[in-house]
Amino acid sequence: MKQNEQNTTSYSFDENDWNRAAYTDIEKFIYDCLIQAGADHKSADAVARSLVTTSLRGVDSHGIRLLPHYIKTLQGGRINGKPKLTFQSLAASTGTVDADHGFGQVAGYRAIDEAMAIADKNGIGAVTVINSSHFGAAGCYSLAAAEQGYLAIAICNSDKFVVAHDGIEPFHGTNPISFAAPIIGEKPYLFDMATSSIPWNRVLQYGLIDRPLPSDVAIDDQGNVTTDANQTNALLPLGGAEFGYKGAGLAGMCDVLSAVLTGMSLSHAMYSFTGPDFSKHRHLGQFFIVMKPEAFIPTEMFDAQLKAYLQALRNQPAKEGARVLAPGDREWAVEEQRLKQGIPIDQAVWQIFSQLAKSLDVAPLQPVSGTVENNVIDSK
Amino acid sequence: MKQNEQNTTSYSFDENDWNRAAYTDIEKFIYDCLIQAGADHKSADAVARSLVTTSLRGVDSHGIRLLPHYIKTLQGGRINGKPKLTFQSLAASTGTVDADHGFGQVAGYRAIDEAMAIADKNGIGAVTVINSSHFGAAGCYSLAAAEQGYLAIAICNSDKFVVAHDGIEPFHGTNPISFAAPIIGEKPYLFDMATSSIPWNRVLQYGLIDRPLPSDVAIDDQGNVTTDANQTNALLPLGGAEFGYKGAGLAGMCDVLSAVLTGMSLSHAMYSFTGPDFSKHRHLGQFFIVMKPEAFIPTEMFDAQLKAYLQALRNQPAKEGARVLAPGDREWAVEEQRLKQGIPIDQAVWQIFSQLAKSLDVAPLQPVSGTVENNVIDSK
Repeated sequence: MKQNEQNTTSYSFDENDWNRAAYTDIEKFIYDCLIQAGADHKSADAVARSLVTTSLRGVDSHGIRLLPHYIKTLQGGRINGKPKLTFQSLAASTGTVDADHGFGQVAGYRAIDEAMAIADKNGIGAVTVINSSHFGAAGCYSLAAAEQGYLAIAICNSDKFVVAHDGIEPFHGTNPISFAAPIIGEKPYLFDMATSSIPWNRVLQYGLIDRPLPSDVAIDDQGNVTTDANQTNALLPLGGAEFGYKGAGLAGMCDVLSAVLTGMSLSHAMYSFTGPDFSKHRHLGQFFIVMKPEAFIPTEMFDAQLKAYLQALRNQPAKEGARVLAPGDREWAVEEQRLKQGIPIDQAVWQIFSQLAKSLDVAPLQPVSGTVENNVIDSK
Repeated sequence: MKQNEQNTTSYSFDENDWNRAAYTDIEKFIYDCLIQAGADHKSADAVARSLVTTSLRGVDSHGIRLLPHYIKTLQGGRINGKPKLTFQSLAASTGTVDADHGFGQVAGYRAIDEAMAIADKNGIGAVTVINSSHFGAAGCYSLAAAEQGYLAIAICNSDKFVVAHDGIEPFHGTNPISFAAPIIGEKPYLFDMATSSIPWNRVLQYGLIDRPLPSDVAIDDQGNVTTDANQTNALLPLGGAEFGYKGAGLAGMCDVLSAVLTGMSLSHAMYSFTGPDFSKHRHLGQFFIVMKPEAFIPTEMFDAQLKAYLQALRNQPAKEGARVLAPGDREWAVEEQRLKQGIPIDQAVWQIFSQLAKSLDVAPLQPVSGTVENNVIDSK
C-alpha cells in the first residue's frame, strides 16, 4: 500500500501512485457502509451502483469519492435512508416520483424504470422527481435506459456556482444535461455535460496548486474574467463572456424542467450541498424523458443510421496529434481499463475510506496490484 | 424611398437607412408571392407566418430575407408547393408527419399541432417530421406551443458548417435547440440557440467588410483557430477549441433526434441548402416534444415558480454597463418596436422583393415612415 494514513502532505496527483481496488469490492464496500449508516437495501444498492458506474467511466468528480459526503447526509438526517417512494401520474405518459427525501439515486433509477414502462406502452414517457437530493452523475440514468434499448434525457439543477450571462454573482448550478441512445451490440452513445465550461471542483483543485484556469471560464468578484482560481468568485456559463447566453439558456432550461416544473428548489435558492447543516432536506427536483426508438422508426433502421453517424464522426480528419471521438468514447475506454486494473483511489479518499471502515465496522477495502484477479469482466 | 434599385454599392449596414414595412403588409406580400409561385394556401400561410414571426423578433438571419430562396426552391422543384401531409402514429404518444417534400414550415406547425393534441390527452407528445426541408427558425415552433400554454422543445439539424471537436472539416450543422415555456399574461419564455457560437452568415458578412471574428469561434483549413473570416474553413462548436466537445455533443444530439430517429439526412451528408441544384429534395427531419405543465404540477404553481425564477434572473447584479436578461427579453423588445415602426428591410433585400413583385405579378411592398398606421398591435 502506497498511501500514508498519517501524512496527507504526500498527496500525489498521479493516478499511478494511488491504490486501486476492484469495482465489485468497491460496490460492496459502499453498500456495506451505507447499510451500517442506516440506509435500506434499495438505497445502498442504488448509491453503490451509481457511484461505481461513474468512477468506472473515469468521471471521478461524481464517483466513489462522494461516499463520505453521502454518509454524512445520512447520519445528519438530510437524507432519509429508508424512504417510502411513491409514484403518481397526472396523465397517461407522465408521472412524478416522490423521493421522500431519500438518496437521489434511488429516486433517479426508479424514475427511469417508470419512464421506460410508460415508453413501452406509449412510446415516450416523462417523469419528474420531487423531494429528492443529490443524484450523482446525470449520465447514470440516461445510461440505464439506453442499456435497455431506450433513448433518454436526464436533467437536474444544482448549487449555484455559475453566473447568468452578464451577471457577476453565482446564479445557476452547473446544471447538467445528459442524453443517451442504444447501440445494438455496443456500449450506448452517452453524452453528459455540465452547462458551465468547467466544474467548480476544478477551481478548488487548481487553487490548491496555483495552476491557472483556462481563459474565459471564470470571473472574479468584480465580474472580470480571471484565470486565477484563488480569485474566482463564480464560473462563466458555457460560451464564456461573449457567448455565455447559450450556456446560461441551457442552464435555465434545466432549472425550468427540474425545479419550476416540480415546485422544487431553484439553483439560486437551493440549500448548499456542503452544509453546514446536514439535517435539512434540500427539496431537489429532477427531470427525465425516455423514448422507444421503435415508436418512431424500425429499430434496425435506427441502429444502422446511428452506427453510420458514429462511423462518420470517428473518421473525421482531426487536427494534428488529436483524434475525433464520439461522446462516451473516452469514458468507455477508461471503463475497459478500470474493469481490468481496478479503480484508482487517491490517497485522501483511501484514507477516509479506511476511517469509514473502522467507524462503521465494515471490512476495509483491499488494494489490488496488476490486473483484477477473479474479476468477471462483464458488460456492465 | 431610400433604396437605390440600380446601385447596391450604396448598401448601408445601418438599419436607420433602410426601408421599413408593416408586418401585416409583409405577411401578405410573402403569402402572395408564394401563391403566385405555385404554393397552396396552407404552405404560403405557414411560410409567411414563420418568416414574419422571426423578423418581428429581430432574428433577421432566419426571417423574411429567406423569401427569395424559398421562391427559388419552389420554382426549381426542390419544394412541393402543394404537399399532401400525412400523420402516422406508431405509439399513443408519438407520431410522424410526412412533409411530402413541402416547406418545412407547413410540416413544422402541423407537427406542433399534433404534439399538442397528444399532450392534451397524455401529458407529453413527441412528433418527428420526415421528407421535410428548411423550416426557418426552430423557435417558431416551440413558441407556437408555448403561446397555447405548453412547454416545447424543437430540434433540427442543418448543412455542415461546424467541425466535430478536434476535427478540421465541417461535419455538423449549426443544429439548433429551442425551448419555450408559457407564462400567464406575458410573452412566453423562449430560448433558441445554434450549437455553434456564431452562424455561418456572420462569417460571410464579416468577410465582406474585413471585420475580425470573435476569438475561438472559427478555424482555417489547417484546423487553426482564426479570426479572419476570409480564411475561415469551418465554425467551431459552442465552447471553442477547448470545450467544444460540449457544443459538438449537443449538435450530435440534434443529428440523432432529427436524422437518426427519422431516417433522414445527417448533417454531413445533407444536400446543400444553397444548391446549385434546386430540383432535388433534401430529405430533412425535425423533432418536437410538447408537454402540458399541468400533467406534472398545477398550472398556477408552475406559473408562480417560473415567474419567481425570471424575476430573480432579471434582478441579478450585472457587470458594468450591462443588464441581465432572460432568454427572449431582447427579442420581445425588438418585436414591440417593430410592431409599431415596421420591420426594417435592408437595401439588397428590398431590391430583390421589388423584382419578385414584378416577376410574380404581385403588388410591391410599400415602405412606412414613422409608426405603422392603422396597424393593430395584437398579441401575435
